[in-house]
Amino acid sequence: MGNVYLALVHYPVYNKHLEVVTTSVTNLDIHDIARSSRTYGIKNYFIVHPSPTMKQLIGKVIDFWQEGYGATYNPDRQEAFSIVKLVDSLEDVLDYIEKKEGQKPYTISTDARIYPNTVSYNFLRNKIKEETAPYLLLFGTGWGLTREVMESTSYILEPIYGPADYNHLSVRSAVAIILDRLLGESWFAK
Amino acid sequence: MGNVYLALVHYPVYNKHLEVVTTSVTNLDIHDIARSSRTYGIKNYFIVHPSPTMKQLIGKVIDFWQEGYGATYNPDRQEAFSIVKLVDSLEDVLDYIEKKEGQKPYTISTDARIYPNTVSYNFLRNKIKEETAPYLLLFGTGWGLTREVMESTSYILEPIYGPADYNHLSVRSAVAIILDRLLGESWFAK
Repeated sequence: MGNVYLALVHYPVYNKHLEVVTTSVTNLDIHDIARSSRTYGIKNYFIVHPSPTMKQLIGKVIDFWQEGYGATYNPDRQEAFSIVKLVDSLEDVLDYIEKKEGQKPYTISTDARIYPNTVSYNFLRNKIKEETAPYLLLFGTGWGLTREVMESTSYILEPIYGPADYNHLSVRSAVAIILDRLLGESWFAK
Repeated sequence: MGNVYLALVHYPVYNKHLEVVTTSVTNLDIHDIARSSRTYGIKNYFIVHPSPTMKQLIGKVIDFWQEGYGATYNPDRQEAFSIVKLVDSLEDVLDYIEKKEGQKPYTISTDARIYPNTVSYNFLRNKIKEETAPYLLLFGTGWGLTREVMESTSYILEPIYGPADYNHLSVRSAVAIILDRLLGESWFAK
């Protein structure tokens, strides 16, 4: 079922004016992406944020569902949050995976533009299935990952197209769709 | 590209104890599902809630992005919200579509259990593509749509399976994945 990690990056990302900023954490990003990640067998969901205060706040939310009243009220949420890790930087994510897996992960991102290393969903779905090497899916918040991060990734996925001339999914929805395309059952072959 | 509508139902739905309740509207359900709906060419996204006060509140959020500062700040959001409609009941949704289309829609839902009218994603994807008849996707909040509503639907989609033994997606994520499976490009054939 693949050896896949996921990171949601709050720094460095662009704002609307293409300035490099740190974004705040959105509460439902923690919940929704943890639940999608757990459903699709992601090994760890890293929330990347440089601020200790912000991480303390997220930590409190997670603790509530892991150990507080939330754990009894909703054990499914407790299980989803068991794979969440709070880290300072993308470098920390890569180090963590390398230490655990004995090799650096292939990194994967998505972009509206086409690059030399742009690949199809089908290509990557097969690759992940066939290999035991770790993969790391990167998602940006705000107006997206910086060019430096994009240029450093091993693979860039094609943008998600619907039938309409509009393409502005939330990061929560994009994560869900991309996990389903890369790791979901072969519903299209049934 | 199909003739598809979507409704998010806040009444009648179950709570954790299988009691029939009315749920509150979650702000990000308005945003995320409007954006996913617009991306996948959904004609209208109905938010079904019986309370006038709650609808007034949602109306204010929508107005902000449709006509207020939000419309200038983020025109993409304005466009997504242009397909949102607030209605009192599921009957109102059906009446609205019948008036507009000249025929009642086929209704579609999802459930963890298998019914006599359970169908595959592939089956429904082809049907929607081939036909001009209207379809209405129903999503429940809380612990899901009541049995009466489930039993009244034309088709019930199989549950979404990931490779893991866990299946607790948020309604926002489930909507995104189901729209991609039913209406997305044929990424799997590329």
